[in-house]
Amino acid sequence: MTSYTAPTKDMQFVLHEVLKVTETGLPGYEELERDFTEAVLEAAGKVASEVLAPLNAVGDTKGCVLENGVVHTPEGFDTAFAAMKEGGWTALDLDPEYGGQGMPYVMGTAVGEMFVSANMAFNMYQGLTHGAYSAIHVHGTEDQKRTYLPKMVSCDWTGTMNLTEPHAGTDLGMLRTKAEPQDDGSYKITGQKIFISAGDHDLAENIIHLVLAKAPGGGEGTKGISLFIVPKVLVKEDGTLGARNAVTVGHIEEKMGIHGNATCVMNYDGATGYLLGDLHKGMRAMFTMMNEARLGVGLQGYAVAVGAYQNAVAYAKERLQGRAVTGAENPSGPADPLIVHPDIRRTLMDQKSFLEGARAFTLWGAHLIDRSHRANDADAEGLISLLTPVLKGFLTDKGFETAVNAQQVYGGHGYIEESGMSQFVRDARITMIYEGANGIQALDLVGRKLAQDGGKHVMAFFDMVKTFLKENEGNEALKESFLDPLKAASKDLQAAGMFFMEKGMKNPNAALSGSYDFMHLFGHVCLGLMWARMARAADAALQGGTTDKAFYETKIATGRYYMARQLPMTATHLARIISGAAPVMALSADQF
Amino acid sequence: MTSYTAPTKDMQFVLHEVLKVTETGLPGYEELERDFTEAVLEAAGKVASEVLAPLNAVGDTKGCVLENGVVHTPEGFDTAFAAMKEGGWTALDLDPEYGGQGMPYVMGTAVGEMFVSANMAFNMYQGLTHGAYSAIHVHGTEDQKRTYLPKMVSCDWTGTMNLTEPHAGTDLGMLRTKAEPQDDGSYKITGQKIFISAGDHDLAENIIHLVLAKAPGGGEGTKGISLFIVPKVLVKEDGTLGARNAVTVGHIEEKMGIHGNATCVMNYDGATGYLLGDLHKGMRAMFTMMNEARLGVGLQGYAVAVGAYQNAVAYAKERLQGRAVTGAENPSGPADPLIVHPDIRRTLMDQKSFLEGARAFTLWGAHLIDRSHRANDADAEGLISLLTPVLKGFLTDKGFETAVNAQQVYGGHGYIEESGMSQFVRDARITMIYEGANGIQALDLVGRKLAQDGGKHVMAFFDMVKTFLKENEGNEALKESFLDPLKAASKDLQAAGMFFMEKGMKNPNAALSGSYDFMHLFGHVCLGLMWARMARAADAALQGGTTDKAFYETKIATGRYYMARQLPMTATHLARIISGAAPVMALSADQF
Repeated sequence: MTSYTAPTKDMQFVLHEVLKVTETGLPGYEELERDFTEAVLEAAGKVASEVLAPLNAVGDTKGCVLENGVVHTPEGFDTAFAAMKEGGWTALDLDPEYGGQGMPYVMGTAVGEMFVSANMAFNMYQGLTHGAYSAIHVHGTEDQKRTYLPKMVSCDWTGTMNLTEPHAGTDLGMLRTKAEPQDDGSYKITGQKIFISAGDHDLAENIIHLVLAKAPGGGEGTKGISLFIVPKVLVKEDGTLGARNAVTVGHIEEKMGIHGNATCVMNYDGATGYLLGDLHKGMRAMFTMMNEARLGVGLQGYAVAVGAYQNAVAYAKERLQGRAVTGAENPSGPADPLIVHPDIRRTLMDQKSFLEGARAFTLWGAHLIDRSHRANDADAEGLISLLTPVLKGFLTDKGFETAVNAQQVYGGHGYIEESGMSQFVRDARITMIYEGANGIQALDLVGRKLAQDGGKHVMAFFDMVKTFLKENEGNEALKESFLDPLKAASKDLQAAGMFFMEKGMKNPNAALSGSYDFMHLFGHVCLGLMWARMARAADAALQGGTTDKAFYETKIATGRYYMARQLPMTATHLARIISGAAPVMALSADQF
Repeated sequence: MTSYTAPTKDMQFVLHEVLKVTETGLPGYEELERDFTEAVLEAAGKVASEVLAPLNAVGDTKGCVLENGVVHTPEGFDTAFAAMKEGGWTALDLDPEYGGQGMPYVMGTAVGEMFVSANMAFNMYQGLTHGAYSAIHVHGTEDQKRTYLPKMVSCDWTGTMNLTEPHAGTDLGMLRTKAEPQDDGSYKITGQKIFISAGDHDLAENIIHLVLAKAPGGGEGTKGISLFIVPKVLVKEDGTLGARNAVTVGHIEEKMGIHGNATCVMNYDGATGYLLGDLHKGMRAMFTMMNEARLGVGLQGYAVAVGAYQNAVAYAKERLQGRAVTGAENPSGPADPLIVHPDIRRTLMDQKSFLEGARAFTLWGAHLIDRSHRANDADAEGLISLLTPVLKGFLTDKGFETAVNAQQVYGGHGYIEESGMSQFVRDARITMIYEGANGIQALDLVGRKLAQDGGKHVMAFFDMVKTFLKENEGNEALKESFLDPLKAASKDLQAAGMFFMEKGMKNPNAALSGSYDFMHLFGHVCLGLMWARMARAADAALQGGTTDKAFYETKIATGRYYMARQLPMTATHLARIISGAAPVMALSADQF
């Protein structure tokens, strides 16, 4: 049985001392005073620890059950969902015009981390609703917004995204689901969709499916695709629920993890659908939501690992095994706690330094989205667009690795399901796959984002690092442990970028063979930058005579660990990248 | 549903062209002619593919069931076990005096890889019997050997190892199970053991438990521990089965994987036990078997991943998704197969180059054990003792990573249990934990093995690398791609060793903080050496005008990949190691 404690203080540190949210002047940020954000985070943390975390194992062991065409969620999910709705947690960062609380996305993200850490599978029901809400919010007609959004804000109705078909995952151009126009302006949707998270359940009175399908006249491939609103239950003119639509659940997949969320095969048999956005522009409509959705999955990747890490720390302090090599530290006990051993320290520091860096990176990403949405800041939009595949790919790969390392601290006990550590690993695993498998993120980064707008955004990133280094060059406290390593890592990233520019023009395989390593290299530089910023903030607090020395000293020590022991990975990633396409592409398919 | 094809040709290459087994002059190796080993491997491969692999998913989904005190194995396991016994596969490398076939351990290891790849959980029933057999074979009295070994060779009786207790895993000094001497020379064993693989089942008429317990007068800690033979059913003087012993199964653990093998809580309630080996020298008796047992787990680590890799390759060739960036390769189809994409190549090459290197490393390790056992070669014994933690720790970490990467090739389909890819990952996970968690392997390597016999064995390893480089220095075909990278990696390993010598004397934490990285650094150098050897053998075959050019060219290309893209990890491991203890040990326990 695992437990969860919300890292409110760490979040407050990032919001107020690193991002300095109230000083940004962004519309809506003026309310984010320390006391206010603390109150929100404390309240969310209480829900996460007391309502959601106790249901995490239940969701995993009971799972969802399909009975007579209806999906039943695990015991207790309904009460918890009602509590979430009642507390207004589903509406936190949504548009007040439709009943939302209108808080900045950065707050929704911080709160989201807590909910995911406590119970990832449960939180997906509202998380997916959030995604569908955004699509309708951006692309819907006034009528559609009035019809669907208020109910989705409150989560009386939830939402889903229907993209994948059995033969078409990444390659959506191949999809076969058809949309036939009807005389009344609606469409009949026919086809099968798979891997639909929260595709059906008993937590809401209606489910609003957003479905990609091909309407006549759109041409081949992704060009012919449109996006449709297909409610599970049709909505009458007066907003009340009418007849059941022709959409049914084929079956629930047996998955490796996230058992508490129903992953459904959805069958559309001439279901009534309504065009969302422009005809044959469905892909574009999907893409506009992608930064948020992918940041959300990156968040899941590390947030699940936060839960795993907290329990690993508790176990390492409790479990007595062996003696410290430098002399017993618990001489009156039969053995010392695991945490005295250097190799246990190493793995806990790996976990801690990654997770705190990941949190800062994600909240910064959410802040960039706020800047783009609330201030129409095109530079912020370009930068977050560049960083999105890094946030998604790097944080989920490392999040999974972190969960595995946390499980390892438990020894054999971690392999027993009862400990709860296996669930963290199995749940975290999906984040590397869905919302674009991480190889696709790497392709997006190197194949599209790097060169976007003439390479402007990656140059802006490098300038940002350079400016930071320059601003702090006189700071001896930071120089050796933070600034020098950041500079070296950033140089590795630039060298990799140069290699792609030189070789990739002639041979795209030369760039794409290194895309995965580039994504990780970039991720490390981002976390290095985050740690340098956090160290500066902590150093400032210590210089300013804080009364909470231990907190800031811990920050600096944790950051030092990251810089000394994680950041050197950039050299290996660079070495792999500049080995080019030859080693990767040497074999013909039949030589495998 | 996964499938499995035995890599006979790759194994033959390692046995005959790299290890050159028939030229070693080792007793028993004279029979290992090409035709003979091929016949054995082909036959074993057929059993693995046709008998074991089809039961792999069954074992996972059905698991073991405890009913009225008896453990039932999954449907079909009994028939398969009977087939294994009948084919003589349980007796392959065991002593002919007790009914074994007496083949070298290197052959048992090659065959073992196949069985594990096909069905890891199933193979543990005989694998653990093998371990218990070895303990009795080395430490038993003539009488004990005659009583137990013939039945264990045939697997009419299976064996278990009982070490762990709820509060005592790694730290066996704390164990509480008691052995009270009886007048007839036997002991009454009382206590609880946990995590006992194959602790009970319905595949054999008796189970021979080897149990660590404390007999009076042995002193504190591990010094007081002795090893006992505790049969599930007592054996009468005439060798027939008598009364049921006082040992029962408490329950079966719900685990993350290896569901086909029953992991039992065993309760000993005054069970009759017989001392095995010397009184109070139980730890020593356990340790003599450890090289083999740990090599066996290292083998499991990569062998499970072989199964995963094969299926990933098949999927990558079959699944159509997207187009090659350099132009369609399947223009008549709706899309190109995944394998055209550079990032899919990257991951498949990562997997392939690791797995073939791991196989060579493991067979070399098994050969060292043969040299130590069959020719009393103390140098071989010292070297395998040094390499054992590397084989166990590095191959299982990388094996798990490889299984995860293979699963990733499947995209969303890999997360669905039906694909079988999740099982490979979940099964592989235990290998990093049991038989000494990998952190303990790293501690064993740096804390004990490095300095063993005055550091003689690690020096011998470096000499071996140096000699290889010297012998081949004129070989231009190998120089740039193989010899230079091996030299650089070996230098990194030496630098790390020097760092430990200099700093570790004053502060043991400085060495132990880098132990895990050192284990991986060492593993990469070993695989680099293996690849350099394989490349030399392949180059010789090509120079010699082989008719099978494609095979040898594939070997060289695969090796080049390893050297160019995996071996550079040594630099990062070294950087972490020389950052020393300070970043790792900076925090007090309550700062986590």
